[in-house]
Amino acid sequence: MYKWYSRVVAFGLCMIAPAFTSSAAAQQLTSPDGHLSLTVSCDKKGTISYQLDYKQQPVLQPSRLGFVLKDTQPLLDNFEPVKVSRDTVNNVWQPVLGEQRNIRDHYHEMLLAFRQNRNGRTLYIRFRLFNDGLGFRYEFPVQDSLRFFIIREERTEFRLAEDHLALWMRGDYDTNEYPYSRTRLSGLNREWEKPPFPVHAQSPVKIPSVQTPLMLFSPGKLYINIHEAALYNYPAMQLAWHESTKTFTSHLTPDALGNKGYLETPAHTPWRTVIVSDKAAGIPASRLVLNLNEPSSYSDVSWIRPIKYIGVWWEYFVTGKSTWAYGKDGSQHGANTANVKRYIDFAAVNGIDAVLVEGWNTGWEDWFGNWKEDVFDFVTPYPDFNVDELHGYAKEKGVKLIMHHETSGSVSNYERRLDTAFRFMKENGYNAVKTGYVGKIIPRGEHHDGQTMVNHYVHVAKKAAEHRIMVNSHEAVRPTGLHRTYPNWIAQESARGTEFESMGGLPPNHACILPFTRLIGGPMDYTPGIFQTDLSWYAGNRGRVNTTLVKQLAYYVTIYSPLQMAADLPEHYNRFPDAFQFVKDVPVDWDTTCILEAEPGEFITIARKAKDSNSWFVGSITNENARTAPIHLGFLPAGSKYMARIYNDAKNASYDKNPQAYSIREIPVTASTLLQEYLAPGGGLAISITPIKDSRKKTTQ
Amino acid sequence: MYKWYSRVVAFGLCMIAPAFTSSAAAQQLTSPDGHLSLTVSCDKKGTISYQLDYKQQPVLQPSRLGFVLKDTQPLLDNFEPVKVSRDTVNNVWQPVLGEQRNIRDHYHEMLLAFRQNRNGRTLYIRFRLFNDGLGFRYEFPVQDSLRFFIIREERTEFRLAEDHLALWMRGDYDTNEYPYSRTRLSGLNREWEKPPFPVHAQSPVKIPSVQTPLMLFSPGKLYINIHEAALYNYPAMQLAWHESTKTFTSHLTPDALGNKGYLETPAHTPWRTVIVSDKAAGIPASRLVLNLNEPSSYSDVSWIRPIKYIGVWWEYFVTGKSTWAYGKDGSQHGANTANVKRYIDFAAVNGIDAVLVEGWNTGWEDWFGNWKEDVFDFVTPYPDFNVDELHGYAKEKGVKLIMHHETSGSVSNYERRLDTAFRFMKENGYNAVKTGYVGKIIPRGEHHDGQTMVNHYVHVAKKAAEHRIMVNSHEAVRPTGLHRTYPNWIAQESARGTEFESMGGLPPNHACILPFTRLIGGPMDYTPGIFQTDLSWYAGNRGRVNTTLVKQLAYYVTIYSPLQMAADLPEHYNRFPDAFQFVKDVPVDWDTTCILEAEPGEFITIARKAKDSNSWFVGSITNENARTAPIHLGFLPAGSKYMARIYNDAKNASYDKNPQAYSIREIPVTASTLLQEYLAPGGGLAISITPIKDSRKKTTQ
Repeated sequence: MYKWYSRVVAFGLCMIAPAFTSSAAAQQLTSPDGHLSLTVSCDKKGTISYQLDYKQQPVLQPSRLGFVLKDTQPLLDNFEPVKVSRDTVNNVWQPVLGEQRNIRDHYHEMLLAFRQNRNGRTLYIRFRLFNDGLGFRYEFPVQDSLRFFIIREERTEFRLAEDHLALWMRGDYDTNEYPYSRTRLSGLNREWEKPPFPVHAQSPVKIPSVQTPLMLFSPGKLYINIHEAALYNYPAMQLAWHESTKTFTSHLTPDALGNKGYLETPAHTPWRTVIVSDKAAGIPASRLVLNLNEPSSYSDVSWIRPIKYIGVWWEYFVTGKSTWAYGKDGSQHGANTANVKRYIDFAAVNGIDAVLVEGWNTGWEDWFGNWKEDVFDFVTPYPDFNVDELHGYAKEKGVKLIMHHETSGSVSNYERRLDTAFRFMKENGYNAVKTGYVGKIIPRGEHHDGQTMVNHYVHVAKKAAEHRIMVNSHEAVRPTGLHRTYPNWIAQESARGTEFESMGGLPPNHACILPFTRLIGGPMDYTPGIFQTDLSWYAGNRGRVNTTLVKQLAYYVTIYSPLQMAADLPEHYNRFPDAFQFVKDVPVDWDTTCILEAEPGEFITIARKAKDSNSWFVGSITNENARTAPIHLGFLPAGSKYMARIYNDAKNASYDKNPQAYSIREIPVTASTLLQEYLAPGGGLAISITPIKDSRKKTTQ
Repeated sequence: MYKWYSRVVAFGLCMIAPAFTSSAAAQQLTSPDGHLSLTVSCDKKGTISYQLDYKQQPVLQPSRLGFVLKDTQPLLDNFEPVKVSRDTVNNVWQPVLGEQRNIRDHYHEMLLAFRQNRNGRTLYIRFRLFNDGLGFRYEFPVQDSLRFFIIREERTEFRLAEDHLALWMRGDYDTNEYPYSRTRLSGLNREWEKPPFPVHAQSPVKIPSVQTPLMLFSPGKLYINIHEAALYNYPAMQLAWHESTKTFTSHLTPDALGNKGYLETPAHTPWRTVIVSDKAAGIPASRLVLNLNEPSSYSDVSWIRPIKYIGVWWEYFVTGKSTWAYGKDGSQHGANTANVKRYIDFAAVNGIDAVLVEGWNTGWEDWFGNWKEDVFDFVTPYPDFNVDELHGYAKEKGVKLIMHHETSGSVSNYERRLDTAFRFMKENGYNAVKTGYVGKIIPRGEHHDGQTMVNHYVHVAKKAAEHRIMVNSHEAVRPTGLHRTYPNWIAQESARGTEFESMGGLPPNHACILPFTRLIGGPMDYTPGIFQTDLSWYAGNRGRVNTTLVKQLAYYVTIYSPLQMAADLPEHYNRFPDAFQFVKDVPVDWDTTCILEAEPGEFITIARKAKDSNSWFVGSITNENARTAPIHLGFLPAGSKYMARIYNDAKNASYDKNPQAYSIREIPVTASTLLQEYLAPGGGLAISITPIKDSRKKTTQ
């Protein structure tokens, strides 16, 4: 897992850099393209700091580094640089599932060793500078004076140079399901002081703070995303905001005792990441977070497959007639055998891979809000859910069932039942599970984003892999690219998704923010595809999904995930078969991805080429404002002819008044085609582009 | 699990007792023999209290009852008695393994219902009065105003009537391995103020307090033991001492957040027990704690068997040449295949059932004191421990191997690996496991004696039962009779045992205290049988086991356990084959038990009849003072002839100077025999009594 020692040998850490070891001097590193420049220095007090520039503009002013430890002296000052080694890596790797088949990993690296003169302790800091940003992490080599130790706080600073606009979510140890705020940094404190939006099992950080991925930008000039990569055996990082110094400081998620990390040397922190671009599209195009994660830890990944699915799910939120719980007589129980068969039938007819069934197992009567430990056992179905019968029926129809493990936050209970739960799944033909963590965590005092839980999610992924099971985790800590290392951890929720459309609604700009924030960490099970957006269709429901129907189609392209739901009820898809064709056609695993245009929180247009196919798909979304998207098809190979099937919002469409007005047209296109496509307020655009078969070629074959 | 509702119906709780419902009145209950008398009253403030008298002497003065809850009003006052129901039970039951084949369960019961007028909440208190003491518990029926709730503190008082002598152990949330103190109650505070004896992973309670079982007595007059029974889903009780009111108050073990119990109605507390006798022998003779536990929860218990065992264990403590850890080259690794075979051979030759092997699995290099989570995996042997080979070898010799699962307190790790660990055991022929909890608990902030851990131990027992595995837990919470309900939880440590003889030594009175304290809760894996008590036998060792050799024999009778070790090295047993004969002969499961004489901390003499045999065994031990024990064999059936083999300390023997001086003689005895046997300082006495075959009867058969 941790291999710095062998790396150090390879790098030749024994090189001494005399200039650096005189305190006043600094070490510099530039990105391969020369645009990014990093300076690391150690001042007379022995305090380490770094600064980052992009094309001669400051991105981060000199920002300090270090730790406060428990029961021992801090790692903050009295340091002396003792060694430096440098390296360059430039290679290409292939994710199991992903936004592109080939990912270039190209960086300049600088590994610095510091000795703390007070006590002879050694701290390494490893910096990697890519063309699209910076990653760095702390490394703690084995040493007598630092073997088992406890972190009280990490003191990594991010000192901004400008009063950027920020798209941010309030700091919280237990939830990442807050709405996003958009303020200038100078307005952050005022906005933060408003009462936190109520979210179940929330633990707002008590000082001004935000979560990552944090998007900062000065439109048209500079776009910065701060996050972390490869978060494992360490708590998730919040960022505390210090207005007077324009500085964010790492604020780790505590455990029940207020401690923030139990480490054993050799150890390292996750990577702290700063993606930088002068174009907004550079942020979602970055693969920096993935590059900083380790390769797949599994040798055989043949069983990890993309999944398009439907589920007994949305009906619980909107119909008012269907529930997870069996209750007294099961009369409203959604996960009954007949209903599940109806979904299986629909999946089979429409080429949908799988059906998720929530509420199949006992425990839903008092699972919520009670901090109850022994709530679900994950193997006992309600009496009207016939496991055997449905297993056989789904198999016969060529459809998989997706298991649901809601833990209600009782992780102690889940972990002790996990082996049995996974064995039950395999016996009954399930190869994927949706996990849920709705509720305060047990062990009590732990948080969703603390070290214990961070390790739990990975434990579940690894344990699932032993059984060749894929995992889609909801309410887990925000992702940090670990799906590269554990590719069966196929998707996560970790932000507001479609379910919130049924609980007050999401603002029309929400999905235009995600590519710059949540999605930087990894794929999201957003559960798009709601065609019946006006929820008054359901008796007693006054809600509204704040998108047009076409925007829901666009989500399949703009929100990357190799696991995508078609979340609406089958009957609505049957009402709009022409629009549903896009959902049937769109793949969920990609060969190539091009961010055609973007502006955080306003709009984004993405073109993607299907894996193992020559078809392309374009998705574009806008916020509450209508716009016309210029779409140049230059991403297509020159000389080839394609047919584009274009799904448009109608001119009179809008998310709030006329969401189901759309048109579909087919036109031939080539690489030189420039489309100008209208998107309604809260609307979108979806295009499928398929090669036109060349009849001459066919003849010669 | 919890069945108050059906019981209530059976008892006819609808009976109204008008006298009681007027606040001034009190309810009374007497024991079946009329000696114990309980009075429960509710004063004008609605405070509930109880008092207990024995043969007209006060045992407990009026003592209050109730709770402080989190985020809701306390259950302390404003109560009004609303209902009372009474019942009598008198039956006999059989434990799977035990001190006697038949146990009488005979009590008068009173179930009182109180309504809290402030908010209409209902609290039940169930009292059971046996001839040998009182048990009572709180019960919380299902009600809208009390569904899921959190206990901040239980406020049960035990207000003493006299300044008794007390044998007590300092209150601590994590260890019950303190030495015992002996003071008057009036001297408790002064003794408590001394610094706590250092014990690994200790969390001393910060106010004057003691653990249970607590022994209080006024010699020759009154003997009282306070403890609890059926501790499950609740934290263990410490007793805070309030000198000014001569009152102990329940002080529950907190969790990481300072909370003391998470309950869901219907719920109940463990039983609070007060054993009362005017004879010291009445305390260890009591089966009250067992009677207050539920019957076996397993229908098939045929696989639960008594175990006499040896082990690769004591050599780690005394030889200085053998270690748990494999280390760099395994040169000192005790659990190597050849050494284990040597133990198997010895067991096979001497009719010992099983061999415990500690240190067989990887992880011992840094398991201790590091609060490390992922330390052992419970399935990976060291390279010189051949699981397959030893499995086959032991099977061939008719010996079982006992598994060892040291968790180092990392319970999160253990629970998630438990299924796999037990499967590994069954695949390799193990049917019993010694568990260990040396170290601070993970989940961090939890304590060995808190609700989470209390439930963990039971979880392990139940999970083990699924695999037909027996459990012997070390460093677990003190027992409370749960071995009746989970009879595969065959023994526990939970006090200082033989291992402490190698770490400074136990005082000679220690084992004379245990029958009045620790053993009230259940069987103890004390690991007796040390023949080489002068540890200077081992180069570099200056320690001493503070007993004579014969006292070690007596332990097999005075310390009840259906799992008993012969803890010394095989070579020492080979040096004293005549004395070892007693260890070979003595059974560990009993038909009948008679406490012949006793005084807490001074001496005890017990006679026991083997199960399924007509042989009897007597053990007697004394503290640092020599004595002559009068042993009347009136427990033998009249008219039968027996041969007694008597193992005596020699006249010049003593625990500190001449521990291995003993004599063995055989004499015929009958029920009318009165023996007068000498016990040396720190010495003991062991007798095996076997029927003399009647040749006439034999002829007639």
